[in-house]
Amino acid sequence: MPFLLNAWYVAAFAHEVRADAPLARTLLDRPVVLYRDAAQRAIALDDRCPHRFAPLSKGRIVEGVLECPYHGLRFDATGQCVHNPHGDGRVPAGAKARAYPSVERDGAIWFWPGDPQQADASLLPSFDFVDPGKNLTHTGYLLTRAHYQLSADNLLDLSHFQFLHPDTLGSEAIARGNMQSGSVEDTVWVRRTTHDEVLPPFVATGFGVPPGARVDRWMDVRWTPPGLMSIVIGVTGAGMPREAGLISPSAHWLTPETERTTHYFFAFGLPKEMGDAGRELVRYAVEGLMQPFEHEDLPMLEAQQKSLGDSDFWAAQPALLPIDAGAIRARRVMERRIAEERTAAGTADTPSTLRGVRVTVADPLGAG
Amino acid sequence: MPFLLNAWYVAAFAHEVRADAPLARTLLDRPVVLYRDAAQRAIALDDRCPHRFAPLSKGRIVEGVLECPYHGLRFDATGQCVHNPHGDGRVPAGAKARAYPSVERDGAIWFWPGDPQQADASLLPSFDFVDPGKNLTHTGYLLTRAHYQLSADNLLDLSHFQFLHPDTLGSEAIARGNMQSGSVEDTVWVRRTTHDEVLPPFVATGFGVPPGARVDRWMDVRWTPPGLMSIVIGVTGAGMPREAGLISPSAHWLTPETERTTHYFFAFGLPKEMGDAGRELVRYAVEGLMQPFEHEDLPMLEAQQKSLGDSDFWAAQPALLPIDAGAIRARRVMERRIAEERTAAGTADTPSTLRGVRVTVADPLGAG
Amino acid sequence: MPFLLNAWYVAAFAHEVRADAPLARTLLDRPVVLYRDAAQRAIALDDRCPHRFAPLSKGRIVEGVLECPYHGLRFDATGQCVHNPHGDGRVPAGAKARAYPSVERDGAIWFWPGDPQQADASLLPSFDFVDPGKNLTHTGYLLTRAHYQLSADNLLDLSHFQFLHPDTLGSEAIARGNMQSGSVEDTVWVRRTTHDEVLPPFVATGFGVPPGARVDRWMDVRWTPPGLMSIVIGVTGAGMPREAGLISPSAHWLTPETERTTHYFFAFGLPKEMGDAGRELVRYAVEGLMQPFEHEDLPMLEAQQKSLGDSDFWAAQPALLPIDAGAIRARRVMERRIAEERTAAGTADTPSTLRGVRVTVADPLGAG
Repeated sequence: MPFLLNAWYVAAFAHEVRADAPLARTLLDRPVVLYRDAAQRAIALDDRCPHRFAPLSKGRIVEGVLECPYHGLRFDATGQCVHNPHGDGRVPAGAKARAYPSVERDGAIWFWPGDPQQADASLLPSFDFVDPGKNLTHTGYLLTRAHYQLSADNLLDLSHFQFLHPDTLGSEAIARGNMQSGSVEDTVWVRRTTHDEVLPPFVATGFGVPPGARVDRWMDVRWTPPGLMSIVIGVTGAGMPREAGLISPSAHWLTPETERTTHYFFAFGLPKEMGDAGRELVRYAVEGLMQPFEHEDLPMLEAQQKSLGDSDFWAAQPALLPIDAGAIRARRVMERRIAEERTAAGTADTPSTLRGVRVTVADPLGAG
Repeated sequence: MPFLLNAWYVAAFAHEVRADAPLARTLLDRPVVLYRDAAQRAIALDDRCPHRFAPLSKGRIVEGVLECPYHGLRFDATGQCVHNPHGDGRVPAGAKARAYPSVERDGAIWFWPGDPQQADASLLPSFDFVDPGKNLTHTGYLLTRAHYQLSADNLLDLSHFQFLHPDTLGSEAIARGNMQSGSVEDTVWVRRTTHDEVLPPFVATGFGVPPGARVDRWMDVRWTPPGLMSIVIGVTGAGMPREAGLISPSAHWLTPETERTTHYFFAFGLPKEMGDAGRELVRYAVEGLMQPFEHEDLPMLEAQQKSLGDSDFWAAQPALLPIDAGAIRARRVMERRIAEERTAAGTADTPSTLRGVRVTVADPLGAG
Repeated sequence: MPFLLNAWYVAAFAHEVRADAPLARTLLDRPVVLYRDAAQRAIALDDRCPHRFAPLSKGRIVEGVLECPYHGLRFDATGQCVHNPHGDGRVPAGAKARAYPSVERDGAIWFWPGDPQQADASLLPSFDFVDPGKNLTHTGYLLTRAHYQLSADNLLDLSHFQFLHPDTLGSEAIARGNMQSGSVEDTVWVRRTTHDEVLPPFVATGFGVPPGARVDRWMDVRWTPPGLMSIVIGVTGAGMPREAGLISPSAHWLTPETERTTHYFFAFGLPKEMGDAGRELVRYAVEGLMQPFEHEDLPMLEAQQKSLGDSDFWAAQPALLPIDAGAIRARRVMERRIAEERTAAGTADTPSTLRGVRVTVADPLGAG
């Protein structure tokens, strides 16, 4: 299946993109170079010099423009060659690298691989709970050797906590809990709850729950295209109201590197008022999750991808269960959006259903 | 060339397949999981959960059924899902992994990748001389990075002992010896003899021949489809009757992993009456052979495969010699069997020529 | 683009090809074995036994003929099987490996992958300044993971010294210097000069120029098909006549290993009269260049190749500059030569334009 092009994707965490050294990253099967110009704006260009196809990411940033490492041509934020050091210095027509619309928001650099005319920043969903300017945040990154939709499936069905992560995230209470899912426009949500659960030590410690104490846990997952998710985990004493408990919100952003590999960016955020304790908690969450993510989820996703091979997901005829409801909704949204985009391709305008769709995520700090 | 499907292949040595941990193995380009159920029967299933394509081999065996590591579905010996831990526990139609007919015999687990209706255990050739229940046995395994037929060629033409294994298995007496070959139904045999030979030390020691002593050696190779072979090596004093000598029988089983890689299972067996000396001899034979097999045969087979690339063997126009007679007979049998199988495919029944063919290997302990 | 077949390519340095051990090398996507016969003549054969496709390069040289490591067949300098050790010793028709015309000249073994009837040694350009029989020479070798034409582009446009090799070979004087290029028949030349340059230390030391001294430098590059180049670097005091300076000539030979990898052979030569100082200088030049070649050029060429992928160079629409003039001339020569060769293919004769073209390189020791 082709990629959805007219959409915002996370290209990098904001702290990865610098004014003194370019960053190379493959995004949607394209080599992209990311850097900051003299005004500290994040720039995204094709990572390929139009002269001789050298990777611009191996060059230097000189006075806010990017210099090719091979023959010294320089390119500005629009990708235009603005300096040829050789001979009469004339810049040939066509010496222009493709530039992608990009925005810095909520601790990430977002880029738009499709039609630049449609790159409306107001379409960006809010993840301000992980904006390092407003909150205490910590970030994690993994490269997943699987199609990004398999990663989304994984996050949209947390029933796997019990079986794939029995020692860190799950317990026998997951399967006997409840699960609901639904969608609002193109946003899909899944809410999973447990009752009377003894949390695994990693989760219990994070929420300050004494060992062996019985709790209710809720796990709220929200997904918007192309793979932008928030997960809010809440814990309260068994039978107690949610307001008596604590929540931990996190952002999970999936960007295809290729058809079979995915950049998985994730981040935790807590209010600045929590001070050092909050700083420690977001670090604890990210570092603790790296273990099950890297050693349990990644091998599983890679094995699924290997099993699927070149086969389309539906052609492989999965035997679906009720737990798959959210993931299937999300797959259907993507399929429709990609089909609409392709129908519209080549026309001067896009259908109105694709315009002005403002995807919103309810403030996870206020969600319950 | 496609694989022959309606045939017994060795999937694993019997001691590799356990009731407490599943075994993953690719066989004929399919991922297969092997385990034992509560009755210790060996089970072979597609190593792919029908729900989300997770590898079942990474799961647990729970009360004799296999539990998927991702979401906890459980599958019985027929591949049927018998447990869904989520929600109302309903098992969806289609939640069934493919099961392969399998049999435990002569120290191996055999599986049948074709039509289950045709999986007749009476078609299995006997290799009871390596049945660990009846004899002293020792086993070896190598993964060969070449088409299984190249491995069969290697074993059906032991003239290469002189050139590829001059220090361990061969001598100048091989090329000046005799070679005969023939076939009975689909069984191919090659008999090679040397006269007045000074054995290389590894072979001499194995047969208890003093250094420098002159002997006659015979090497009897038998092959049946799809790549099941016995080799009996015998040694007697130069000019002495065979009855005055000793023999060493071994089994060599080739199972395609993929079109270009082969599982090579081999085993030596001697009568239990030989006690510790016999136990030591079968171990000596397997461990000693690992050296020339791994460091001389494997690189050669891999180099042949690389040289052939995607080319069919015949399209590469080999310049054949009389020493190739047995290997070519075996190739012709396979080509005919595969063609017959494909002709019959799609019909409710198979032609009678494919039915009830009982392939027999003469008792190698009695052969001379 | 297909390879040019009717041309001399360097297969190996002369010192690599031995009478006591064969050398395996992939050339123009073919496995080739190189060795010397009893008369010390260099022989080039397909590295594939016509019997069972074993690599002859893993065999032994026995009395000047090559013995297959698998079954002991032996092949002479024409590729003909001349010995079958088995049975009646008859050699089957067709037991012949392809032999390539080869010549030893100027420290290299040259081979001709095309029509043997056209393999005229008089077509070989002279590189006698690196003939170890006549001069003090030192050789270097690198495998470049890029199309050979990208390597030629690199050597035909030394403006990249300033940007890719600023610490070893280049300075800011390169871009402000002059560049001229042209062609004579199929020979392309590029002459680049700097004025009033402070040489980087590696070059200054090689030419015996004091640190900080100002010089004029000239770099003369000559190319002939299929990728045979000489580079003469000269240095004189700023504003001084060239005759007052020194020159350093080198040979650069590009032979495709595959469509995407290139054998890069290079050599420096100085007159024998220079004695130990000359011996030291050619060693200094080769060893010093290995650093920028290996750590700067090779990664760049590999990155260009990766960026191009399966795309043809022209299809990728390079934005060309005046500095590309020489490289583009060379590409055009190759394109024409390959087209002519293909037009002529299948005919008994080649068009006269391809015959008797004597490619000459002016004596670089005399060039200025």
